[in-house]
Amino acid sequence: MSTAIFYHAGCPVCLEAEQRVVDAIDRSKYQVEAVHLGDQADRIIEAEAAGVKSVPALVLNGQVFHINFGASIDDLKQ
Amino acid sequence: MSTAIFYHAGCPVCLEAEQRVVDAIDRSKYQVEAVHLGDQADRIIEAEAAGVKSVPALVLNGQVFHINFGASIDDLKQ
Repeated sequence: MSTAIFYHAGCPVCLEAEQRVVDAIDRSKYQVEAVHLGDQADRIIEAEAAGVKSVPALVLNGQVFHINFGASIDDLKQ
Repeated sequence: MSTAIFYHAGCPVCLEAEQRVVDAIDRSKYQVEAVHLGDQADRIIEAEAAGVKSVPALVLNGQVFHINFGASIDDLKQ
């Protein structure tokens, strides 16, 4: 099973992407997880290690796709 | 059936996104089309009308998601 991790921060741009993009992912191929980095600040390091620079971002099998722009990951650290 | 249109221009960033993102879309929900705006310049107007500002971009039921950044749509007109 492939993995799809959607990192977001609850921002309007994030929610719009979550509703549409995450819903469009083929669940028969991908195990999908949504991670709210505002609520789960301990996973910011993991997201950065994967190459996430801003949210919302979708990581498909370790490959990062930045989708539109909601917030910089640096801004989530404060 | 929902529609997913992936606009690209054959650039490396586009191809990477096409392979991963388009492949991840649930074909039981979405009718997927990939449009190469370099080859099909007559569809640039349609893409712009949908709100596409750069490629690669994924339009899910009319809603635009810009994925990473390959090229500005303005640069495709030249």
